Amino acid sequence: MTFEKLALIGIGLIGSSIARAVRQHGLARTIAISTRSQATLDEAKALGLGDIYERDPARAVEGADLVILCTPVGAYEAVTRAIAAALMPGAIVSDVGSVKEHVVKVMKPLLPANVHFIPGHPIAGTEHSGPSAGFPELFINRWCVLTPEAGTDPEAIDKLVGFWRALGSNVEVMDPAHHDMVLAITSHIPHLIAYNIVGTVADLETSTKSEVIKFSASGFRDFTRIAASDPVMWRDVFLTNRDAVLEMLGRFNEDLSSLQRAVRNGDGPALEALFTRTRAIRRSIINAGQETAAADFGRPHGT
Amino acid sequence: MTFEKLALIGIGLIGSSIARAVRQHGLARTIAISTRSQATLDEAKALGLGDIYERDPARAVEGADLVILCTPVGAYEAVTRAIAAALMPGAIVSDVGSVKEHVVKVMKPLLPANVHFIPGHPIAGTEHSGPSAGFPELFINRWCVLTPEAGTDPEAIDKLVGFWRALGSNVEVMDPAHHDMVLAITSHIPHLIAYNIVGTVADLETSTKSEVIKFSASGFRDFTRIAASDPVMWRDVFLTNRDAVLEMLGRFNEDLSSLQRAVRNGDGPALEALFTRTRAIRRSIINAGQETAAADFGRPHGT
Ligand SMILES: NC(=O)c1ccc[n+]([C@@H]2O[C@H](COP(=O)([O-])OP(=O)(O)OC[C@H]3O[C@@H](n4cnc5c(N)ncnc54)[C@H](OP(=O)(O)O)[C@@H]3O)[C@@H](O)[C@H]2O)c1
Ligand SMILES: NC(=O)c1ccc[n+]([C@@H]2O[C@H](COP(=O)([O-])OP(=O)(O)OC[C@H]3O[C@@H](n4cnc5c(N)ncnc54)[C@H](OP(=O)(O)O)[C@@H]3O)[C@@H](O)[C@H]2O)c1
Repeated sequence: MTFEKLALIGIGLIGSSIARAVRQHGLARTIAISTRSQATLDEAKALGLGDIYERDPARAVEGADLVILCTPVGAYEAVTRAIAAALMPGAIVSDVGSVKEHVVKVMKPLLPANVHFIPGHPIAGTEHSGPSAGFPELFINRWCVLTPEAGTDPEAIDKLVGFWRALGSNVEVMDPAHHDMVLAITSHIPHLIAYNIVGTVADLETSTKSEVIKFSASGFRDFTRIAASDPVMWRDVFLTNRDAVLEMLGRFNEDLSSLQRAVRNGDGPALEALFTRTRAIRRSIINAGQETAAADFGRPHGT
Repeated sequence: MTFEKLALIGIGLIGSSIARAVRQHGLARTIAISTRSQATLDEAKALGLGDIYERDPARAVEGADLVILCTPVGAYEAVTRAIAAALMPGAIVSDVGSVKEHVVKVMKPLLPANVHFIPGHPIAGTEHSGPSAGFPELFINRWCVLTPEAGTDPEAIDKLVGFWRALGSNVEVMDPAHHDMVLAITSHIPHLIAYNIVGTVADLETSTKSEVIKFSASGFRDFTRIAASDPVMWRDVFLTNRDAVLEMLGRFNEDLSSLQRAVRNGDGPALEALFTRTRAIRRSIINAGQETAAADFGRPHGT
């Protein structure tokens, strides 16, 4: 499943991790890299991430049999418009965006009929961003979800599945709406809540705030790590997965109201019952092999 | 600052970590251990955590110049009643409970005037519990907050400060109400929210739930670790720090409502502004040395 030419549009944490892993495993003869700013392009070049460097995404995708969008989702429409006419017939066009229904809605109508459009989402990341944050092991043992429409060429799907497997991922094919609902609760709501509580702290009077920072190791610190993720990427996630996020946030809020009531009423049995019930979920995660000794597979590479 | 006899009442994660560290550094000539159940007492004995093992806490504190309560806070009243008459005049009586104002309210009236009552809270822990979960390094480089009343014998305070420093901690003396407010936001609210979101997931239909577990590595997993903490300990925290928790939860909820509104209205600039502002807090925590490569200092010892 070696590709002739891979074009990566966007070369931050995810794009640069793909570039490094593709190079390491020899999955493409040529890697073309395109990004919006000259500064980031120069950084990618200095890191030796590709073979061809282009500001213009249309030139990067010329002759590419695999094109992967690796920008924030909010940039997809403009990028797709820019590359559509330059795409090679038969090319596989994919992405790594954290939401999927919106991506299909935006990209599908702009793409020529003679390419294979297979949206994707590697469920792997860290709180760091930019080309130097990437590393080739990022995708090892992590899930990658693909959400092709019914009727997509099975051979093209197989090729992309093989690509992600070669990067070390476990691949799952899923409906985009279902993906968005599952990710709303596993990823988007946890990020929203982490951003929120860190925001609450940011509004405290200065003296309390400095003590919160001092004693942050008691739980709060883990939330700040989640809330250190890229603001633009997460803005786009919440702008484009609004319905699933609001649905899950509604459930979260209902549950929080009743928990708040239990605290107010000093209802010990209700508190203990909830705190006991949640342990079963933790055990399932450990049994599913989704927990390791490290907080995050990507973590050793960060601070 | 070696003690003649240290009595630990309760020998779970925190008590057993103190026992191990005290032994390692030779901080007490004799370690007496008392716990509610014969099973836990036998486990402590098998682990060789002390020199004297007693079901009856009154016998454990006899002749002890340092007594530390290491049970959930809800047990303090009964324990204090049981030991009060057996305490040696001049003994230092302390604890490790995660709330402090309530502890003063409950213990102070029951203690004889001739002991030095100095409440404490080592801000160190893991999600595991029981005598075998402890390890002697738990307190190294972590804060320990002491909340003695005005007028407490300075020599006794110095002795206890020296004890915690010898365990590797940085010691801070603070007003109990202030402690409870700071910990409400750094520790109690993060735990409440983690329990809540894991509870929301526990209520999902079975098929979605199993996918949430499968893809938990995207953020949710970190919440389940926090929500795996001991139910009884946390029940007692929320029963005894109600006012500070409700105050901070009120602020959190207000902020979440406006964040929810921003998502509903598709207000990109508001989302990006908040997500950017929270990064400064993260930087302060890293600068304050409260972050390490590991998610939790205690983590390598767990699963
Ligand atoms: N980070 C994660 O944990 C994670 C995990 C899974 C999936 N994802 C998805 O992966 C994608 C990229 O995330 P990342 O973390 O790699 O981001 P990143 O490190 O911030 O890199 C973003 C890249 O996109 C480019 N870009 C940004 N805005 C653009 C615009 N308006 N037009 C054209 N290019 C633009 C940037 O170019 P310049 O620097 O040249 O401006 C940069 O090359 C996102 O869609 C995200 O949802 C992220
Ligand atoms: N875990 C943390 O992260 C952490 C951090 C800082 C402070 N703390 C504080 O440390 C204290 C102990 O926490 P831990 O994590 O060490 O708990 P743990 O591992 O669950 O151990 C609790 C100990 O208290 C005993 N106990 C429980 N209920 C009792 C009762 N009703 N009467 C008498 N003894 C009872 C248990 O005895 P049996 O097993 O014999 O029943 C056991 O010896 C709590 O006050 C907590 O707030 C905990």
